[in-house]
Amino acid sequence: MKRLLLSRVTLLIVALAGGVGAARFLQGLVQVVPQSQVTIIGNVGDDTKFYGLHISPDLDIVAYTLAGLVDPLKGWGFKGDTFHSLKTLQRYGCHTWFNLGDRDLATHLYRTEQLLQGKKLSAVTADIVSSLGLIVRLLPSTDGMLQTYVSSGNRRMHFQEYMVRFQTKPRVSGVFFKGAGSARPAPKVIQSIIEADGIIVCPSNPIVSIGAILAVRGIRSALRRTRALVVGISPIVGGKTVKGPADKLMKALSIECSAVGVATLYRDFLDTLIIDQVDRKLAPRIRSLGVKPVVTRTLMKTLTDKVRLARIAVSEVER
Amino acid sequence: MKRLLLSRVTLLIVALAGGVGAARFLQGLVQVVPQSQVTIIGNVGDDTKFYGLHISPDLDIVAYTLAGLVDPLKGWGFKGDTFHSLKTLQRYGCHTWFNLGDRDLATHLYRTEQLLQGKKLSAVTADIVSSLGLIVRLLPSTDGMLQTYVSSGNRRMHFQEYMVRFQTKPRVSGVFFKGAGSARPAPKVIQSIIEADGIIVCPSNPIVSIGAILAVRGIRSALRRTRALVVGISPIVGGKTVKGPADKLMKALSIECSAVGVATLYRDFLDTLIIDQVDRKLAPRIRSLGVKPVVTRTLMKTLTDKVRLARIAVSEVER
Repeated sequence: MKRLLLSRVTLLIVALAGGVGAARFLQGLVQVVPQSQVTIIGNVGDDTKFYGLHISPDLDIVAYTLAGLVDPLKGWGFKGDTFHSLKTLQRYGCHTWFNLGDRDLATHLYRTEQLLQGKKLSAVTADIVSSLGLIVRLLPSTDGMLQTYVSSGNRRMHFQEYMVRFQTKPRVSGVFFKGAGSARPAPKVIQSIIEADGIIVCPSNPIVSIGAILAVRGIRSALRRTRALVVGISPIVGGKTVKGPADKLMKALSIECSAVGVATLYRDFLDTLIIDQVDRKLAPRIRSLGVKPVVTRTLMKTLTDKVRLARIAVSEVER
Repeated sequence: MKRLLLSRVTLLIVALAGGVGAARFLQGLVQVVPQSQVTIIGNVGDDTKFYGLHISPDLDIVAYTLAGLVDPLKGWGFKGDTFHSLKTLQRYGCHTWFNLGDRDLATHLYRTEQLLQGKKLSAVTADIVSSLGLIVRLLPSTDGMLQTYVSSGNRRMHFQEYMVRFQTKPRVSGVFFKGAGSARPAPKVIQSIIEADGIIVCPSNPIVSIGAILAVRGIRSALRRTRALVVGISPIVGGKTVKGPADKLMKALSIECSAVGVATLYRDFLDTLIIDQVDRKLAPRIRSLGVKPVVTRTLMKTLTDKVRLARIAVSEVER
């Protein structure tokens, strides 16, 4: 019945997405809901400059993954990419801690040039997405400058530096979003949230990925105002993240590193939180926060896992 | 005797160089004179922007060739380079008439970033040259903006566009150097010319390659003032160029397309012109211009050819 229903109605889904975890979930989602009915609001807090190039890691991970082009082992970059440019840059004595493949570089060259020509990031992202053969709508949270930084003692570093260069080793004492005061939502972001039939918060880092999206003025309040149900998937399973430093960051910020902690961070707009079966005992605590817990297997190894999880999330926003 | 002599004295040679033809000659020159005694003044009139990257085709051709890294068939770019970035840029709908390999791209990324950081082109070029393991001194003619344009009817186009994009097909009605009024010689350019023991004008396009170097204020007059002998090698052999559009351009500008035409263009500072044996009958006309003709084989197919020609050029500046 559910399948029939989904194929009959035009269900507009908005997904808030970080990088690798979100992209895997979205691969399932676009099997359940046609791409034309999916709007993804992507994180730009990790955006950085590398050798003068504007890099949008999370937007690219989502686009490459949905286009079937992503490196399946790393979860980012193009599969089968070569690194000849990077190796030559090393020859020139450059810091090459940022791993850019030759094909990947083209995306950054294209984006940088288009931005220099005065195009907005949202328009360039739309071009990239359609050039890769996708019809999904991928919106950056903002066309403005919003960058995620972490503090470690007296030192402040861009999140990419913390992640890629320092391999999440520095002890984090704070997270902040540079530009959050002035960055405005990109066109259609607020409208999509308000007009959505359902909103899914992908299993992404709640502090730096979803957190950076929520830091853009107006997005959090739109999530509170929308009539759509908001369903999240906890990226924390058994007290740990599948990928990335969400657990480290939650601990560093004294947030309980569990699905309960995730529910706490989103409780002002979240209706439902899908949690892993290993965390089933946390369900009552989540319910006590006013969030409906849904217990299932959340690990996504195969496409079947992803589709199954997407189907559950979609059925929750439809209730 | 000559070989012994060359190895004993410290002979400072300055070479004015365009792209492929010059680079081939210079490969021979650095076998005859140690790299540490060679200063190359390179052409930047062909420099252009491609996808926001600052490209210096002639400087790179010279550096890659002397480092033994150049693609031997094309005469530019890295040998064995891949083109994954470029192919991906095509996917984004980009004009990719400019052929940039993945390794080559690194040079442009490095240069562009360093220039954005405020470094001068001469300093960046020195970095690139030393990173490629060379000790020769390669100076751009200017750190300023000087760009070679051609007119074709009502249309003006950058020389690279004429060369690469339009494959030298448009009928040329004029050549001009944008920025020539304000571009100043890069540091050490004038000093090198004045202090040189000998100056060699490589077999490059006299209109657009050497012409663009001579268009930088002060260079031509330094060539007239220097006490060093100035020896040129005609790039025109039997009324044609070995490579490139020099013949087309000379005809278009009503300059005799021969070694005599070359001598005419350089006669105010040239002491000797090395011409090919097929042009031996032109020797009296060159002599009548006040330039000493030296007739030899000038085609450079093997390294032996290049060394032989360089030896003749060096012996002429030494006389």
